[in-house]
Amino acid sequence: MKTTLDCIPCFVRQALEAARMVSDDPTVHERIVREVLHWSSGMDLNQSPPVLAQRIHRRLREITGSTDPYLEAKARLNRMAMDLLPDLKAEIKSAPDPLAMAVRLAIAGNVIDLGAHGSVTEADVRRAVQQALEEPFSGNWDEFSQAVAQARSILYLADNAGEIVFDRLLIEQFSPERVTLAVRGAPVINDATLADARVAGLHEVVDIIDNGSDAPGTILEDCSPEFRLRFAAADMIIAKGQGNFETLSHVPGNIFFLFKAKCSVIANHVGLPLGTHVLARFHPRR
Amino acid sequence: MKTTLDCIPCFVRQALEAARMVSDDPTVHERIVREVLHWSSGMDLNQSPPVLAQRIHRRLREITGSTDPYLEAKARLNRMAMDLLPDLKAEIKSAPDPLAMAVRLAIAGNVIDLGAHGSVTEADVRRAVQQALEEPFSGNWDEFSQAVAQARSILYLADNAGEIVFDRLLIEQFSPERVTLAVRGAPVINDATLADARVAGLHEVVDIIDNGSDAPGTILEDCSPEFRLRFAAADMIIAKGQGNFETLSHVPGNIFFLFKAKCSVIANHVGLPLGTHVLARFHPRR
Repeated sequence: MKTTLDCIPCFVRQALEAARMVSDDPTVHERIVREVLHWSSGMDLNQSPPVLAQRIHRRLREITGSTDPYLEAKARLNRMAMDLLPDLKAEIKSAPDPLAMAVRLAIAGNVIDLGAHGSVTEADVRRAVQQALEEPFSGNWDEFSQAVAQARSILYLADNAGEIVFDRLLIEQFSPERVTLAVRGAPVINDATLADARVAGLHEVVDIIDNGSDAPGTILEDCSPEFRLRFAAADMIIAKGQGNFETLSHVPGNIFFLFKAKCSVIANHVGLPLGTHVLARFHPRR
Repeated sequence: MKTTLDCIPCFVRQALEAARMVSDDPTVHERIVREVLHWSSGMDLNQSPPVLAQRIHRRLREITGSTDPYLEAKARLNRMAMDLLPDLKAEIKSAPDPLAMAVRLAIAGNVIDLGAHGSVTEADVRRAVQQALEEPFSGNWDEFSQAVAQARSILYLADNAGEIVFDRLLIEQFSPERVTLAVRGAPVINDATLADARVAGLHEVVDIIDNGSDAPGTILEDCSPEFRLRFAAADMIIAKGQGNFETLSHVPGNIFFLFKAKCSVIANHVGLPLGTHVLARFHPRR
């Protein structure tokens, strides 16, 4: 998905929020905002939004000298999600269709995104869960459940720390032995890495690989050869979150996108109201 | 008032909204956004926000070849306000303190600002009027009413087309022979010029001057010598709107600011919630 002009004020705001989150020094805030303005003025709008976000967050890590400025935030979000786990499990257990409920909750978990919002509270997450329970299902459920039933191999692209606890509940509904979970190759924003997958206990359930990239999305040409092989070989790909949608919506493959539409550009792109919980499939099998 | 880093994403959004309002050509939109990003990356944050806005809107007029891209919008806003006039007059007539009611309504009229919002509807204006009727008065009313009672000369700095109809109702509550109304020297956004003052019939009530500037605020060094003389000589200055506040809040003088706090930067600056109707005085008489 290309970047729109509407994305640009949002990049600048995100960069400022991120700079404030990782440093108390106003000169750091100003430096990062000025750099983002300068880059953006010459930006290739054919690139997807995570390309610029990758660049912003690399630079933030350079300026602050921290390899993982969101480490504490991620630990907090993981704990918050783990605290919700008993309630989420109970919802799935009592649901007439546990797989459908697990999908709804996995989409709700996508609210835990510090790229789209400067902060996420437990109240935000509980609201999203409530919305998942009440909102009619908007995606093509039959197509998704048939694909799950038929796939011999599923590559599950995680999105964020905290959210990954919700992903575990969905993965447990599949036969996990056919699932590979992919996380980011290095820290960026609050995106999930191997450490977050382990906190959620996912290493006890599925094979986990990292994608070799520090982009907040899946930019295939930036990912490792091993990841690209898995991507090409998978019968079905489940891609969580806006960043994976923005970077993969043009890629051929049996890809299902699960996300909460948290910005108006994405909402307009999929033709659904802002805040909608989306299960979408954009391209047919190769 | 200095520009903050939080103003910058807002500038970029405003520039995009303005470009879309004045042109259907996406290349014009992209060109103006890229220029604003480039200027902003080197911007002197000691300047007030209207300095950059002046630059953006000059460039928009250059690119589109239109001397007044908001001409139609201003005509619509003036008509909208004129349609509300009978109701507004009735509110003032039936109020226990007509001057206080006229002040409240003049502040409510400041919602008609296409710089802060891409569009303003009659419903927005009616909501602001309702808020003015219901909200407790937050400014120093005694100081203001005493200053009005004592002033031999009042310089009234108008802000926007449409809003200027509300200003007329307030000016009529003074003894208008001691009032001079100042409007912008040239079109910028939907700021009021001589033409808008005439539509509101103000030329029948007070002396009107223009300030010689095309900034959406009052940058004294950019204003005409005649305006600066009037400014220095006035016993009392009433400055409408955020732009006049942003450019004059540091200027010594008997200045009363009347505006609706429409952005979080301004709301934080005055220490009041977003959306508050403000009557403020920041500096003592010279």
